[in-house]
Amino acid sequence: MREVVIGIDIGGTNTKYGAVDRNGKCLFEDSICTSKSSKVDEFIVDIHNSIERNISKHKDITLVAIGIGAPNGNYYNGTIEFAPNLTWKGIIPLVDLFSKFYNMPIVLTNDANAAAIGEMLYGGAKGMKHFIEITLGTGLGSGIVVNGEVVYGHDGFAGELGHTIVKYNGRQCGCGRRGCLETYASATGIKRTVFKLISDSLDESKLRSIPYDKLTAEMITQSAQEGDLIALKAFEYTGMLLGFKLAESVAHTSPEAIFLFGGLAKAGNFILNPTRQHMEDNLLAIYKNKVKVLLSEMKEVNAAVLGTAALAWIELDKRTHNC
Amino acid sequence: MREVVIGIDIGGTNTKYGAVDRNGKCLFEDSICTSKSSKVDEFIVDIHNSIERNISKHKDITLVAIGIGAPNGNYYNGTIEFAPNLTWKGIIPLVDLFSKFYNMPIVLTNDANAAAIGEMLYGGAKGMKHFIEITLGTGLGSGIVVNGEVVYGHDGFAGELGHTIVKYNGRQCGCGRRGCLETYASATGIKRTVFKLISDSLDESKLRSIPYDKLTAEMITQSAQEGDLIALKAFEYTGMLLGFKLAESVAHTSPEAIFLFGGLAKAGNFILNPTRQHMEDNLLAIYKNKVKVLLSEMKEVNAAVLGTAALAWIELDKRTHNC
Repeated sequence: MREVVIGIDIGGTNTKYGAVDRNGKCLFEDSICTSKSSKVDEFIVDIHNSIERNISKHKDITLVAIGIGAPNGNYYNGTIEFAPNLTWKGIIPLVDLFSKFYNMPIVLTNDANAAAIGEMLYGGAKGMKHFIEITLGTGLGSGIVVNGEVVYGHDGFAGELGHTIVKYNGRQCGCGRRGCLETYASATGIKRTVFKLISDSLDESKLRSIPYDKLTAEMITQSAQEGDLIALKAFEYTGMLLGFKLAESVAHTSPEAIFLFGGLAKAGNFILNPTRQHMEDNLLAIYKNKVKVLLSEMKEVNAAVLGTAALAWIELDKRTHNC
Repeated sequence: MREVVIGIDIGGTNTKYGAVDRNGKCLFEDSICTSKSSKVDEFIVDIHNSIERNISKHKDITLVAIGIGAPNGNYYNGTIEFAPNLTWKGIIPLVDLFSKFYNMPIVLTNDANAAAIGEMLYGGAKGMKHFIEITLGTGLGSGIVVNGEVVYGHDGFAGELGHTIVKYNGRQCGCGRRGCLETYASATGIKRTVFKLISDSLDESKLRSIPYDKLTAEMITQSAQEGDLIALKAFEYTGMLLGFKLAESVAHTSPEAIFLFGGLAKAGNFILNPTRQHMEDNLLAIYKNKVKVLLSEMKEVNAAVLGTAALAWIELDKRTHNC
């Protein structure tokens, strides 16, 4: 029998999951709709049924652990706490709810921490003890790795670099404050920047014909590839602010590398180059020319599943060593 | 025989050291002049002679390890690297130089990391796994503890919160950049703030009669105790900026507590209250009312020696466990 773990990535709309062996090979992947379950108990039944249906098709595998990534996922408590993008409100004891169906190690963290673990086990951070994973999606998430372990902090919520302040009294953030890094450096942030640049300048741009609600990071990347000035300036501005704040994160944990992951990272050098340059320009002398800024090497198609599966494998190893 | 370690705190002017047992009891303390040794080899001979002289007076002790705190001290390499305040330039292989005289574990880090370890072993952070030590002296140093261990980062230089940027294009810093936190939040920073407030306002103040070169943090504290408006505003401003940046450090490692240590921390509530309030005001919701801001509980008289001794004891334990 081949041992596998299930990696589950819970998003506001869809939940993706897959069975992954120790080498990072994904045996199957599937998804269910998150938003249709207004109660979390319904969701648990749904995903359990879906997982069992898939497992029954693979007679040669044994399920040994489950890893879950979710917004505001708390590693210590196994809870989702006050996640703004989920329909389930308050504190959800997700690991306990899964335990009713599965008698095995079940572990939960937020999606960015899971991405960091995936990068460490299966991506570009293999062998690295100190690095930071930055996820540039709707928001900006981060997973900080120190001494080969994700930093969870005393309460399980460490690593919210998206909510450090890059502009005092700057853009309004969903968190209720102003000027958070993620209001500038994220797929949403660069959209806001495009609209600011359109309002400030007279540069011609295809992007002037697209309403805010329809604009995507992909469209901005494509425009940049076509030489669109507004798009190019938007990437420069995004990378400038991201690089500036990453220099401060380096002063905290002095990582070997910082990986960019997620939707906006697909823009490749458009986001990588200005980020790298402005981080370097702002580093304290002792850190200069030491910290790599890299694109994630996780395959995007199943990166979230791989990350949560990696979380499960690492947890299994931890529990084995502690016995 | 009673086992002791020697804790050594190397400063630009003086080097203090002491013999400390496992319970944190200091058996003797002494100091030598750092600045008179233009070559590091002379310094090593000096301190070795001084240590041996003291040890010879205590027949019942065995020396088992040495811990050293120094500016820009690198834990991994045992080197002091480009320390601006020392006369020895470049990269100094300090641990190797000590090894010629002592055949035992010798370990080096910067003074703020040593203070953090001292806080953990002998001060207010006993039993804490996640905390940050902030040293408010001439500059602002920091030691970040995650999972019960100081974060050294991939190069040994993690934890330079004094050089995160609190004001874009702000005050000139000795590091060559502008707006670093330590140019505002430190004994020197509050002096600069007093001079700014004197220039900006017409408030009466005893501090108007003191030249910059003579002004000390103690004088500002004493003036605050007497109700001096400039001094009180200076503490409020210092705590505001410190608290604002500490909220960002919380978003990195989510500590249980932040300890203030060093010269400026002697001002007690004058610095503690505004720091605590402004940190709390700027925290992301999930961190609110969770993170304590506290004064260090290290006895100031020998805190630096205690910290470096704690570093030595922890290193001894590490090496024992790894055998």
